[in-house]
Amino acid sequence: MSKILHDKIEPRLLKGFRDILPMQMIARKQMIETVEKTLCLFGFLPLETPALEYADILLGKLGDEGEKLLYKFKDHGHREVAMRYDMTVPLARVVAQYSDLPMPFKRYQVGPVWRADNTQRGRYREFYQFDMDIVGTDAKLADAEILVTMQSSLQALGIKDFIIRVNDRKFLAQIAQAQHLTNDQTKAFYAGLDKFDKIGMTQVQEYWSHFGINAMQITAITNKLDEAVTSLNPLAETFALAHQLGLAKNLAKFDPYIVRGLDYYSGIVFETTLTNAPEYGSIFSGGRYDGLVGRFSNREYAAVGASIGVDRLLAALDSLQLTPTTSTTAKIYVTIFDDALLSKSLEITKLLRDQRVAVEMSYEPSKIGKQLKIASSKGIPLVIIIGPNEAIQDIVTLRNLVSGQEEELSHAQLLARLTPDD
Amino acid sequence: MSKILHDKIEPRLLKGFRDILPMQMIARKQMIETVEKTLCLFGFLPLETPALEYADILLGKLGDEGEKLLYKFKDHGHREVAMRYDMTVPLARVVAQYSDLPMPFKRYQVGPVWRADNTQRGRYREFYQFDMDIVGTDAKLADAEILVTMQSSLQALGIKDFIIRVNDRKFLAQIAQAQHLTNDQTKAFYAGLDKFDKIGMTQVQEYWSHFGINAMQITAITNKLDEAVTSLNPLAETFALAHQLGLAKNLAKFDPYIVRGLDYYSGIVFETTLTNAPEYGSIFSGGRYDGLVGRFSNREYAAVGASIGVDRLLAALDSLQLTPTTSTTAKIYVTIFDDALLSKSLEITKLLRDQRVAVEMSYEPSKIGKQLKIASSKGIPLVIIIGPNEAIQDIVTLRNLVSGQEEELSHAQLLARLTPDD
Repeated sequence: MSKILHDKIEPRLLKGFRDILPMQMIARKQMIETVEKTLCLFGFLPLETPALEYADILLGKLGDEGEKLLYKFKDHGHREVAMRYDMTVPLARVVAQYSDLPMPFKRYQVGPVWRADNTQRGRYREFYQFDMDIVGTDAKLADAEILVTMQSSLQALGIKDFIIRVNDRKFLAQIAQAQHLTNDQTKAFYAGLDKFDKIGMTQVQEYWSHFGINAMQITAITNKLDEAVTSLNPLAETFALAHQLGLAKNLAKFDPYIVRGLDYYSGIVFETTLTNAPEYGSIFSGGRYDGLVGRFSNREYAAVGASIGVDRLLAALDSLQLTPTTSTTAKIYVTIFDDALLSKSLEITKLLRDQRVAVEMSYEPSKIGKQLKIASSKGIPLVIIIGPNEAIQDIVTLRNLVSGQEEELSHAQLLARLTPDD
Repeated sequence: MSKILHDKIEPRLLKGFRDILPMQMIARKQMIETVEKTLCLFGFLPLETPALEYADILLGKLGDEGEKLLYKFKDHGHREVAMRYDMTVPLARVVAQYSDLPMPFKRYQVGPVWRADNTQRGRYREFYQFDMDIVGTDAKLADAEILVTMQSSLQALGIKDFIIRVNDRKFLAQIAQAQHLTNDQTKAFYAGLDKFDKIGMTQVQEYWSHFGINAMQITAITNKLDEAVTSLNPLAETFALAHQLGLAKNLAKFDPYIVRGLDYYSGIVFETTLTNAPEYGSIFSGGRYDGLVGRFSNREYAAVGASIGVDRLLAALDSLQLTPTTSTTAKIYVTIFDDALLSKSLEITKLLRDQRVAVEMSYEPSKIGKQLKIASSKGIPLVIIIGPNEAIQDIVTLRNLVSGQEEELSHAQLLARLTPDD
């Protein structure tokens, strides 16, 4: 067979796309598994939906801005298809499509979504979301359970200090109604609240007044918001339920300035910031969206859910030194001294793996110094050497690459030293 | 806020695409985690590459047939992009792109790939692959380790009876060369061998003769193949190494009729069939492909790898009753008797979750019979009831929905009965 010579193709990535190399993958997988375990404790079930959907399934609830960001194209059958933009719309489709799903349906889904966003804003075009939702009930207890699930997930990740800020879109809608705000004014009311963190109340009020909300209305609105914080928390019952389920009083609070951007929220809304890494913004947010399934079904399904921005939370965990910094899955590297002693190295490799100790082995004899360098470049902390002396005594030398210490150990001693990896 | 009424959009999937509903997802996740754990024992590292790549990265090694199946389109920046067709080409790109990856590089990657294939052949257009590869060494020991990794992965999944059939493309190339076959005849030689399982040797020989391979050549070829099986196994050294690493003699054998379709194989090739589910074909296959990275780099990297067809293996496991058949992550369902006793139910829910027992809870009081039906529809085997009697005595009733048995238990007795879920 002749070897075909190709022109070299430059190995490169599309803008806004990333490879997740092993060290980052190990941290990411550990984080995802930790949250998954927590969700299973709460009875959430895993679900997966396709990367590609009919475009009309994904369109319609994203707004003009969102639709521009869809990766949309015609497939081989000239169908208009699009890549998954989020996990919520596909969930709504699933609930409408499978009428025999036992309700309430508690599902989680983790995976990439795709948005052709401007990368200059530091955004990626492929990023991971981790969504958890309860569909089929409008009970306050479901809202409460979502809050507790969020707390447990973050605590399982080792995060102690965070604050879940919770508001109620119904409460905001009532204020807007009581002040007879027009639709546009109501939108401006929300948009202004959303800016509060960044610009403060004086400028929020100025913003409102641009939309014709008058001074009396602004005073009434501000009073209502203050009153809710100090005495009339509209979510008091939800909080009481959540506290009974374990929500710590200092980790969640009512905050009338939380709005969340998406149109489809209809009740509780929440955002979460890490006290010691506030610069990452909200890493865990969501709310109640009772109307979404109705796009696909004549039956209405109430729903509440939360979503982790996986990449953002990972970056925050990293800054808090809460991610593993290992670049290896093997904890021990078995060298090969020479061809004659190869079988000794294979024997010990097999022995360790049989005991479920994670081992990487050398593939060919070379100078031991060179093999130590390979182990070191891979970040594997321990190395086994079996030279002629070790072979005669049926022992191994265990070298710790961090401390530089070496010990001669029998097989039994070696096994006693190492704990299984799972 | 006025409610916008949309026309209903029919909830539906693209042809060849699937939702993975919870029961299938639980089985799939368990399988993937089991194989991942095995791979980590062997020192493989996780990697992830984007769903979208520049089209020219993916083109060129797939053949005309493969290129037709690529989901290819122009993105918002008018770049020709395509969805990942397999995991091997992206791996080759990664190895060429990051020159500081410590070699040999042992990585695994699991995830969906996309091919616009004909669905009438029972093929899906989005399906999962689980790939494991060793890049940067042409050592026979690496080939041997891949075989052992495959055995350990299948055994970890509970599969006892399977056969890994192994051949050497170099051995086949030598036969072709010795018989002075032309390039087209060599291709026909391979294609004929590939049909052996289905049509038998007589028809394979007929097939060869269509391409001008003469009777003498055919006899010589057949003799070489027979000789290799009975006495001159060209992979004897690789097998000896693999056996030292634990490969069972009855689970792998040399088979000169294994070819594998893809052009890029250059050495060892292998396929795996399950003895008790042969109808699923090869569920784990691969080989050595030393030239692939060279498309992207002036440096050559030898490489060997294996790939699991996740969906196919799952179907086979299912037929062997080796997949879990649970539709729930929660093992216990906590009912709510009435509003007055709600807090009792929340208390026990919290208590169990704190002990890492997976609990799903009711969200509102209703007739206990109705709540039992919900638990049953979800496949949750145990239910807790706390009515007025239980509340007074500070006990719970634990009902087994399978046996119908009920017991009254103190909190301590209940906890002693349940094992944590992780």
